[in-house]
Amino acid sequence: MGKKVTTAITPTREEDYPMWYQEVVKASEMAEKSPVRGCMVIRPWGYTLWENISSQLDEMFKETGVKNAYFPLFIPLSYLEKEAEHVEGFAKECAVVTHHKLEQGENKKLVPAGELAEPLIVRPTSETIIGESMSKWVSSYRDLPVLINQWANVVRWEMRTRIFLRTSEFLWQEGHTAHANEEEARERTLMMLNVYTKFVEECLAMPVVRGSKTPSERFPGAVDTMCIEAMMQDKKALQAGTSHFLGQNFAKGSDIKFQNADKQEQFAWTTSWGVSTRMIGGMIMTHGDDDGVIMPPRVAPSHVVLLPIYRKDEERAEIMAYTQALAAELRQIRYHGRKIVVEIDDRDIGGARGWDWVKKGIPLRAEIGPKDMANDSVFLGRRDKSARDKTGVKKDTFVDGLCDLLDEIQDTYFQRAKAFMAANTVDIDDKKAFYDFYKSRKGIHGGFAMSHWCGNDACEAKIKEDLSVTIRCIPFDSPQEKGECICCGKPSNKRVLFSKAY
Amino acid sequence: MGKKVTTAITPTREEDYPMWYQEVVKASEMAEKSPVRGCMVIRPWGYTLWENISSQLDEMFKETGVKNAYFPLFIPLSYLEKEAEHVEGFAKECAVVTHHKLEQGENKKLVPAGELAEPLIVRPTSETIIGESMSKWVSSYRDLPVLINQWANVVRWEMRTRIFLRTSEFLWQEGHTAHANEEEARERTLMMLNVYTKFVEECLAMPVVRGSKTPSERFPGAVDTMCIEAMMQDKKALQAGTSHFLGQNFAKGSDIKFQNADKQEQFAWTTSWGVSTRMIGGMIMTHGDDDGVIMPPRVAPSHVVLLPIYRKDEERAEIMAYTQALAAELRQIRYHGRKIVVEIDDRDIGGARGWDWVKKGIPLRAEIGPKDMANDSVFLGRRDKSARDKTGVKKDTFVDGLCDLLDEIQDTYFQRAKAFMAANTVDIDDKKAFYDFYKSRKGIHGGFAMSHWCGNDACEAKIKEDLSVTIRCIPFDSPQEKGECICCGKPSNKRVLFSKAY
Repeated sequence: MGKKVTTAITPTREEDYPMWYQEVVKASEMAEKSPVRGCMVIRPWGYTLWENISSQLDEMFKETGVKNAYFPLFIPLSYLEKEAEHVEGFAKECAVVTHHKLEQGENKKLVPAGELAEPLIVRPTSETIIGESMSKWVSSYRDLPVLINQWANVVRWEMRTRIFLRTSEFLWQEGHTAHANEEEARERTLMMLNVYTKFVEECLAMPVVRGSKTPSERFPGAVDTMCIEAMMQDKKALQAGTSHFLGQNFAKGSDIKFQNADKQEQFAWTTSWGVSTRMIGGMIMTHGDDDGVIMPPRVAPSHVVLLPIYRKDEERAEIMAYTQALAAELRQIRYHGRKIVVEIDDRDIGGARGWDWVKKGIPLRAEIGPKDMANDSVFLGRRDKSARDKTGVKKDTFVDGLCDLLDEIQDTYFQRAKAFMAANTVDIDDKKAFYDFYKSRKGIHGGFAMSHWCGNDACEAKIKEDLSVTIRCIPFDSPQEKGECICCGKPSNKRVLFSKAY
Repeated sequence: MGKKVTTAITPTREEDYPMWYQEVVKASEMAEKSPVRGCMVIRPWGYTLWENISSQLDEMFKETGVKNAYFPLFIPLSYLEKEAEHVEGFAKECAVVTHHKLEQGENKKLVPAGELAEPLIVRPTSETIIGESMSKWVSSYRDLPVLINQWANVVRWEMRTRIFLRTSEFLWQEGHTAHANEEEARERTLMMLNVYTKFVEECLAMPVVRGSKTPSERFPGAVDTMCIEAMMQDKKALQAGTSHFLGQNFAKGSDIKFQNADKQEQFAWTTSWGVSTRMIGGMIMTHGDDDGVIMPPRVAPSHVVLLPIYRKDEERAEIMAYTQALAAELRQIRYHGRKIVVEIDDRDIGGARGWDWVKKGIPLRAEIGPKDMANDSVFLGRRDKSARDKTGVKKDTFVDGLCDLLDEIQDTYFQRAKAFMAANTVDIDDKKAFYDFYKSRKGIHGGFAMSHWCGNDACEAKIKEDLSVTIRCIPFDSPQEKGECICCGKPSNKRVLFSKAY
């Protein structure tokens, strides 16, 4: 028997990927299941990550002229019905409010009372309710475009839930815009997908494939759904963001009309686009390793933890003073516009202390003992290296080089994920090879297949039925190329991205 | 007939205060009623104000060691019952989710389906659900204190609603902390009330009276409810924030136990504290005038609007270039840590343009015409002066003095509100005088009465019944003083604050 390397997380990714995911989330204290069906509790370490995600995205939205607003949590049932496909898509999994108070019933138990004349739906998305407002705000082409975003909680009743990835309640942002013409609305749809791409690649260090959904995978009611798809370490795809061109469908449903410059009345063209706390699950599954979560520095809740080490009480004061001074110095530094966040952990719990921070995924751990202090240095551990691989660094070098070091770590994560996605994305032209590709071993299959598709719903459905593999998107940068549909053999002129998915 | 001064808002405060409130909110485009019962739509101008309020409060919370987290929107009915007074207080006005999907019923109409085994309450406040998490997080005194805050939407079903002041859904923050002993929990309760006081007075420019609620006005389940009370221009009180010492009541209900240093098991001591979008209503009613909303500079969505004026198209390019350059210069300035926000409004709508910004309450309006440009100056209107009172100011003077000018305006608002509150706060010792004080003329009565109260619930209830006047708080800085209860004449040793209230 060879020597087994101990890992902080059991099981490892190799041993049981879904269980590994649950365990890293738990060990990082990012979030936990709540006793409320399908809902999660996002703990401070996870919520601070969400704050860093949302504040940076928010800034990017605002740079494109978008303003935030807030709309009601409840949607009257009749609103949901304004767009036919939309209601079809969301009626099956929504929370329905039917009463507005509680009263003592039999056995003095509280029971719902005050039945509502019309049931209310807890918003699964807000196109219909925001459309109602837009119809009031817009009367002339001068009122357009309307560029609105909302940060909110939404509810879609899920039977099988997984923290961050699929929860009945989740946090998200939903952008909603209305335009005077189709071209401008289509441009906005792509513009927001580009914002997501930039954010996800640069800040979350997750490489993505950009493309459009097939008709069967579109947002209910959309004319075109654009998306970004990332690859998890089990080689499944995860949709990390979507941007929908809604045509005039919702404008007609919500009566968003305007007079154009020629005094003709027209319906507006609308878009919607969103990312959610789901992205956090994707980030964990993209970067995490068998020692726990890995936080890309650009979004990390904290950048550095200082770990003072002293054996005798006499040493304590001096070590702590050195530590505090270093922390103060570090906190002066700005990394991509955000202040460096420093933790000081002086809990007396031995080696478990360092491991706690490894599991949380903090980019840098700096131990400070009497020797380090005497040398005017710190003993540095990097999350992109093995947890045991630590080196002494002069304090000034550490401080002066901090931003570069964080950028280097950020880039390491991105390049690693990019190489992994490239290595597991294959052009497949043979049907048997395609089917073999998706035979799973311990739940891990081949990855992304770039294969031809004739455009027929039936072929897409057949592959989904046989393999649980779907067309994740029709990639924007897939070149025109003659080929044969991987399912039926009929002619096709473009490869699409197939994969199993979350 | 005297000359009537035209105001931007009809009716004026004097003519009809409640209607004036509705009209200023509407004219400012801050928010509007939604077709969903009791819910409001917060439009960008109102939501940006909320962002400025929440981001500044958030920073203050974090400085005291509080971290943000997020808990489920839904609370199982059984949780609400964990604290007896609590359920009593909230059962009467809550949204109840009873189903988790919709199905086609008769006439193909959608009806609720998938009935839940246990109904869920949309959170009216989160003590019970957060308590559940805390009970898992806390086992030793080393795990304490737990200092958590949540920014969220909550729902309390209201029959009579008013934008910002009383809506079924509103946005708020709710802080929840758990401590190892009573003293620390009481200190935290006061600490957070002090944070609110500082924020409301310094940023919202609203003077407040700090004190404790009487037992009948406490948060359901609290041992002590501290509050800050502000005076609106109709001399009614508005509670602008509360901080509750919950004793061990909720810890017992949620089983938040810990082992102390002597290995004894004990229940924790908890607190909760919150402010909401209601504060915005208070701000409007404190400062607004007959020309519209007034935004204190520290929280204003924008600080300055530039209004380019050109008669000929030839002038346009030059004027706009001058305007853009000035905007760029202003945007470099930081005012209390926040970047100066500048609007440029070049809509061709004549005089209505300036009035729009007056109604929105922006602190400064700078008109820029050919003459101003030639003089290297702007024609400046201040929201703290009459809308017609504008003066030419050298551009450099304007830029260099901007922060001081904003501080001056901020202070003007605060001093004005403070003087108003002082002028309408009266010590009353005579019962008839007290009753006369609250005789209203066009809905406007005397104001705050500082009167003696024996401490008896019955006297409090009698005055409430007779006059709709309640004890807003037992002020902290009301000195010990012998007197007679304003209702029954029995001995009292402290004056309390009586008022009608929102």
